Amino acid sequence: MYSADTPSFVPRGSRSISTLPSFVTKDRTLTLSWSDAGVNETSTAAPHKSSFNYTWLRDHCQCPACVHPDTRQKLHSSADIPLDVKPTSIEVGSSPTPSVRIVWEDKPLVGRIGGPQGPHISVFDLAWLRKQDYDPAAVLARDREAMKIVPWDRAMLEKDTVGGLWSDYESFMKTDEGQRTVLEQMYLYGLAFLRGVPVNEQAIEGLCERLGTHVQETFYGKTFDVKSVPKANNIAYTSLYLGLHMDLMYFESPPGLQLLHSLQNTVTGGSSFFSDSFAAAERLRTAHPDEFAALTQVPVTFHYDNNGHHLRFRHPTISDYDGNEPMRVYYAPPFQGTLECEPEMVDTWYRAFARFREFTERPEMLYTHRLEPGECVIFNNRRVLHARDEFDPMSGDRFLKGAYVLWDAFKDKYRVHVQRHK
Amino acid sequence: MYSADTPSFVPRGSRSISTLPSFVTKDRTLTLSWSDAGVNETSTAAPHKSSFNYTWLRDHCQCPACVHPDTRQKLHSSADIPLDVKPTSIEVGSSPTPSVRIVWEDKPLVGRIGGPQGPHISVFDLAWLRKQDYDPAAVLARDREAMKIVPWDRAMLEKDTVGGLWSDYESFMKTDEGQRTVLEQMYLYGLAFLRGVPVNEQAIEGLCERLGTHVQETFYGKTFDVKSVPKANNIAYTSLYLGLHMDLMYFESPPGLQLLHSLQNTVTGGSSFFSDSFAAAERLRTAHPDEFAALTQVPVTFHYDNNGHHLRFRHPTISDYDGNEPMRVYYAPPFQGTLECEPEMVDTWYRAFARFREFTERPEMLYTHRLEPGECVIFNNRRVLHARDEFDPMSGDRFLKGAYVLWDAFKDKYRVHVQRHK
Repeated sequence: MYSADTPSFVPRGSRSISTLPSFVTKDRTLTLSWSDAGVNETSTAAPHKSSFNYTWLRDHCQCPACVHPDTRQKLHSSADIPLDVKPTSIEVGSSPTPSVRIVWEDKPLVGRIGGPQGPHISVFDLAWLRKQDYDPAAVLARDREAMKIVPWDRAMLEKDTVGGLWSDYESFMKTDEGQRTVLEQMYLYGLAFLRGVPVNEQAIEGLCERLGTHVQETFYGKTFDVKSVPKANNIAYTSLYLGLHMDLMYFESPPGLQLLHSLQNTVTGGSSFFSDSFAAAERLRTAHPDEFAALTQVPVTFHYDNNGHHLRFRHPTISDYDGNEPMRVYYAPPFQGTLECEPEMVDTWYRAFARFREFTERPEMLYTHRLEPGECVIFNNRRVLHARDEFDPMSGDRFLKGAYVLWDAFKDKYRVHVQRHK
Repeated sequence: MYSADTPSFVPRGSRSISTLPSFVTKDRTLTLSWSDAGVNETSTAAPHKSSFNYTWLRDHCQCPACVHPDTRQKLHSSADIPLDVKPTSIEVGSSPTPSVRIVWEDKPLVGRIGGPQGPHISVFDLAWLRKQDYDPAAVLARDREAMKIVPWDRAMLEKDTVGGLWSDYESFMKTDEGQRTVLEQMYLYGLAFLRGVPVNEQAIEGLCERLGTHVQETFYGKTFDVKSVPKANNIAYTSLYLGLHMDLMYFESPPGLQLLHSLQNTVTGGSSFFSDSFAAAERLRTAHPDEFAALTQVPVTFHYDNNGHHLRFRHPTISDYDGNEPMRVYYAPPFQGTLECEPEMVDTWYRAFARFREFTERPEMLYTHRLEPGECVIFNNRRVLHARDEFDPMSGDRFLKGAYVLWDAFKDKYRVHVQRHK
């Protein structure tokens, strides 16, 4: 069906399309009716019909003159596409792969002088194109599939049906499969433990490099020491009970992963507790939707104004799916500043916040473990709340080495090592 | 007016209040009528009347048992406050400073067993309390004052009325005033230049430490080299024209400051261009509000899928004031992925995006400078677009050392070194 001037490259993302779609055009829009709809459906993320605006299509041409074959960078700007661009022909064919071939009216991109002569031709791989359907329902369905996580409570974690809660250091550091297991456990549950980690202050940096690209440095340093010290500038550095919280909420993008590696632990007490804030938030959404809404609407100011630093950021307690994350929670009661809130919502917010806290603290939600030397816990700091029992500082020594990994850097590793292997 | 059991600490944030306010209580709310309103007004951020919910007041008690005097961490959670907490007495007095003194009904915090006996007493400094007024109009007025920036065009920068566009390295590195000048210039304009920077690859890290806490490491490394190289994985590392853009839009929190320090420049061409995207966005808001709205509503996917990394994030092109920043812009045409958009908004979005680009590229918006060795440009990467003319790689050498500083880390320094000196 293609003429002789079909570009010779094979479009990326090629998958089998069992029957070619039919198409219609109307209002500068191409609509494809996927003929396998209802037959080969394995996912709600595959729509039955997809519509593509002509400007969008020209902008998303994947040919080597439009997208650099190696870097995948676009070689034109969305602002370069003439707003009245239109095809002179549209054909659907199956060679070399099922594709739609569009010959565009001969019109230069905005601001381009010279450049190749003659009309531009775009060949879209149909399987690829179907996955780019930009109708909000299709986007949401794809996101739901890609962002699937597993809310948990204590019983689920203790059963550890996936078998990824505990890993050996050697396997995590030295095998692809061991690394993938931990990355996947972190993505789905946000909590994993390692055993057999060398008991030295440097080991944690190597762990971070397997989980993201590098340690996320903060003004606390590249890594930090959790030890009881006199005149501590943070409750974390005392022996007191430390309630469920997340770290560094006063940053725009708080740390994604937190690692705590035990180097010494001879004290009485000092167990760690973990609770899935996403599970608590889902419970609140179901039981008290008005309170869930209040926690998503009222910004909470988090601040750190101490020791020559002054950081401050407003985040809502819960931020629902926003196109980037299935959910976010921002929770660090000791670092809250002034609550700024519509006056008529103050009572609802306090009721909601108290209920949310109560949900996170229920015994059936808490996973407990006392970290022994050589063990390291890794948790999603923006999902899994952590707490610590008080301990007797006179009874021995307790020393945890801590570090953070940027959430972007973790997702980078996760995409490269896990999603591509699926 | 206070009884003998008034706590002896002097509340923070004390300022003179010329006449004591009157107050009324209703619906668990204390309303203060500021008697100097209209007399001592210097700012719209000082409201005439302020209302405070009882739960809010008890939660925001600033006494040493409620807020740690050194760390400023809260010692209770907002979830600890009984939802029906109420005062047994409220008094306004002027000793030691104008304050409102509240004696609370004797009721323990939620979940607290034991603890101090007897009713809790809160003494709020009135000047402090007035600044915590949480009515949305008061919050917005305070934010407007705190987040004031100066949109610019070329003529304004060339006049450099504030005198902060160019600084000497020595003065910036070694004097408080020199540092403050650059920090303030960066906050207000987002663009500053240094001259006399030692021509070596390490100098840039010292600059970063004066602008934030530390260099913001990315998967490109702690610093990066902008040189023309064969088989570049990024157009930046070629000698080609590089249009106006921002760096690393595929991160959740893209770099705040970008530094480019010239170490070598003997080529023909290769000038740098800068344009204030906030000024262009304001122009679009005024001239085409529907297009401005489209750019705030449609998320753009930015991605980097290359070289063993896969980062991806959706940001709208423009994000208006959100309680944390006066505005944000996310703009990097070569790194755009699939545009996902309500079908009926596609045409508007393309029209808006083209117009926005055109506004940023107008000659009267572009500040141009060719960086010579020993010069360093610092710009707000989330506000000031940068571009580079093509150059002739055979005509000589061009080598810029680059680094990023987290926006949180910059604002930390700015608050500590500039806002506190005002």
